[in-house]
Amino acid sequence: MSAKKIPYKLYLTEEEMPRTWLNLKAFMKNAHPPFLNPATGKPCAAEELEQVFCKECVEQELNTSDEEIEIPAGIRDFYTNFRPSPLVRAYFLERALDTPAEIYYKFEGNNTSGSHKLNSAAAQAYYAKKQGLTSVTTETGAGQWGTALAMACAFYGLELKVFMVKTSYEQKPYRKEVIKTYGGNVIPSPSDTTEAGRKILAEFPGTGGSLGCAIAEAVETAVKTPGCRYVLGSVLDHVLLHQSVIGLECKTALDKYGVRPDVIIGCMGGGSNYGGLVAPYMAEKLQGKNDVDFIGVEPASCPSMSRGKYAYDYCDSAKITPLAKMYTLGCGFMPSADHAGGLRYHGMSPVLSQLYHDGYMRVRAVKQTEVFEAAEKFARCEGILPAPESAHAIKVAVDEAVKCRQTGEKKVILFGLTGTGYFDLAAYKSFNEGTMKDYIPTDEDLGRGFAGLPEV
Amino acid sequence: MSAKKIPYKLYLTEEEMPRTWLNLKAFMKNAHPPFLNPATGKPCAAEELEQVFCKECVEQELNTSDEEIEIPAGIRDFYTNFRPSPLVRAYFLERALDTPAEIYYKFEGNNTSGSHKLNSAAAQAYYAKKQGLTSVTTETGAGQWGTALAMACAFYGLELKVFMVKTSYEQKPYRKEVIKTYGGNVIPSPSDTTEAGRKILAEFPGTGGSLGCAIAEAVETAVKTPGCRYVLGSVLDHVLLHQSVIGLECKTALDKYGVRPDVIIGCMGGGSNYGGLVAPYMAEKLQGKNDVDFIGVEPASCPSMSRGKYAYDYCDSAKITPLAKMYTLGCGFMPSADHAGGLRYHGMSPVLSQLYHDGYMRVRAVKQTEVFEAAEKFARCEGILPAPESAHAIKVAVDEAVKCRQTGEKKVILFGLTGTGYFDLAAYKSFNEGTMKDYIPTDEDLGRGFAGLPEV
Repeated sequence: MSAKKIPYKLYLTEEEMPRTWLNLKAFMKNAHPPFLNPATGKPCAAEELEQVFCKECVEQELNTSDEEIEIPAGIRDFYTNFRPSPLVRAYFLERALDTPAEIYYKFEGNNTSGSHKLNSAAAQAYYAKKQGLTSVTTETGAGQWGTALAMACAFYGLELKVFMVKTSYEQKPYRKEVIKTYGGNVIPSPSDTTEAGRKILAEFPGTGGSLGCAIAEAVETAVKTPGCRYVLGSVLDHVLLHQSVIGLECKTALDKYGVRPDVIIGCMGGGSNYGGLVAPYMAEKLQGKNDVDFIGVEPASCPSMSRGKYAYDYCDSAKITPLAKMYTLGCGFMPSADHAGGLRYHGMSPVLSQLYHDGYMRVRAVKQTEVFEAAEKFARCEGILPAPESAHAIKVAVDEAVKCRQTGEKKVILFGLTGTGYFDLAAYKSFNEGTMKDYIPTDEDLGRGFAGLPEV
Repeated sequence: MSAKKIPYKLYLTEEEMPRTWLNLKAFMKNAHPPFLNPATGKPCAAEELEQVFCKECVEQELNTSDEEIEIPAGIRDFYTNFRPSPLVRAYFLERALDTPAEIYYKFEGNNTSGSHKLNSAAAQAYYAKKQGLTSVTTETGAGQWGTALAMACAFYGLELKVFMVKTSYEQKPYRKEVIKTYGGNVIPSPSDTTEAGRKILAEFPGTGGSLGCAIAEAVETAVKTPGCRYVLGSVLDHVLLHQSVIGLECKTALDKYGVRPDVIIGCMGGGSNYGGLVAPYMAEKLQGKNDVDFIGVEPASCPSMSRGKYAYDYCDSAKITPLAKMYTLGCGFMPSADHAGGLRYHGMSPVLSQLYHDGYMRVRAVKQTEVFEAAEKFARCEGILPAPESAHAIKVAVDEAVKCRQTGEKKVILFGLTGTGYFDLAAYKSFNEGTMKDYIPTDEDLGRGFAGLPEV
């Protein structure tokens, strides 16, 4: 609780914006186990990773010692294009819930990509340019990450090839138009431009593709094209590092008013948003300086933490990436057609996995119908139409605030609102029409995923 | 030019936000001629208008004396939900154009309706609630205005019926889902719920409807339903009044840095955005306190000011509204399928029409392909994907900045960026694929519209 009147929206000035990212790994007692080369079973060397990723990103990926890493001026420059994002005091939601809790949310959706993804796209494109590369590749499913990277590549002057899962390419024709408007090349995957694509096409003519196949095509193209590297939008440590700008902005804004969160909530797909949001507060907790209740939220349809195993697994379903130690449902697990596409990932960030394993955070799995009920309530009083992914955090924040109404506790609740739902209206339609269903995998479903875990 | 370093984004604090709207009419030497009742040819009395519109809006519509009108606390409360909007110094665009000009834009697109429309929707819903009404009606074409009004009605607790042109209802199924998520009832027009609708359906079974028909149905429903009134999103004086919050926020932000605009540019459909943006600066010009170059921008496909007549005309194509004196192409003019749907209006705000007639502003008509070229350039350096309507202002701002590069002048250019293009991707697709065409009406086309002007 704070004395000063807190405005509805807390914006930092340019001078107050973070100049360094926070490297959570430097505060962890237990580093997460290293990536393993699946062929040799040995830890991946930097040189191996640098064939695929930008050099500076690999350094950040392996950096477990520096607590702070400078945000280069060239990235801070681009950040001013869409940051600071607003930290909103949810007065209207508090009123609607009649809760004594203080609720805050950090809104990352006010940029054309519609989500927090741009924070890391900016950094990775900058480093690629700095390294003298001329192009990067990536894959995209629904298209949010592809859009973010296209925006960053337009800003820094890099060519971009986005391998877009063919069914998305055909079903969501407008997403690719955004990417094209920013100058990106969008290739439906599987394509005949790569060996991986040609192989799949030969085996399954007419297939709609998969994220695994798109990743394989993007990595192959990056490795075989001079001056090109591959860029990934979540899961990896350097992506979480870049996303720490979210949490750092929150902390600067709240510290000015003497506000200390009691609970910090965020949705988790690959974990980059939540890892970034919690960074400064988790670093404190790791030092015994606070006892914040960290709650990651995942869909009940894809419960990688709450029902997954802590094991080495491939990061992709095509099994071409290194092995990471993480909570996973097995890279062969097929999540249901849940509308929160960004949360349908079989694994979880190795950093968050280790923190969960060590008891520093807890996790809740929620069903999509209850998520959309919360989304609708939120939209009607706070104005913003949330992305289905983001609404997972809203659902749990509302639950916590309602608990406070019952107990009379004046908790300070902070949650991450990662993005907007303007491209998710098919999901809202299904909710509005009452045809939305909940999918919960059976133990048998999970067993099939676990059966495919590699032996290490 | 200013001495202090100007940040990329200028946000007002809550304390700095306007507490009054500015009533431009109180500064005008020549008031625009009154609305006429088409049946009697006499000026409309307040009582006539109050059968259709909220009482307080009618008072504002007819108020030509008060320079300032208080923004009630209940509206300022909702404004904090989505305002202040950012005033952006377009450093990136300036750099890309290599211009000595200073460019600023006021961005109204960071709310779920995606545009400035919410400023007046908020006010009109508030006044309806205050008057004790239980519901309001409106029409919507593309759906932006309907969304804004649904958000405002959800906030204040009013029922809403939106008559949506049937072709839009069917072609843009997602827009109506946004409206429904905010609790609005969307009815495809023509419908069998009104006499006007039934008459059209009997005459033209299977018709896709028109804005004129949707207006007729919304007005009829408002007039026949107890506790209900009709709400309009542009053209009228009280809508311009509410939109003055845009210009007032600009002026407060720029005054802090001693910045005085030399040129103020905005797109014009019905004129509410541009009328709101220019308000405080135009009031100064009317008092001889500045000599700002005001440039309204309209599509060459629907050139109501640059090629229209200053005459009394119906505000709608169904000829059910009062007659307004305005620049018009005739309410029967059929604009081409230009992608800037919000600018396809046959007339223009009576206030702006009078100001143009009196020489206080000029107008430019631009073609849509050059508008999309400017939109793409802007998106790539400033990040925001603009609405086609808003991009009309970008096109002219870029032209002015390029002129400054040629002459070396350091002009200060301010333009209004009314909204985002997330729901206009069919237009971007057509631009990206090179199939976009320019439509310019011939003198013959215009003649047909003028022939339908009523005799007064």
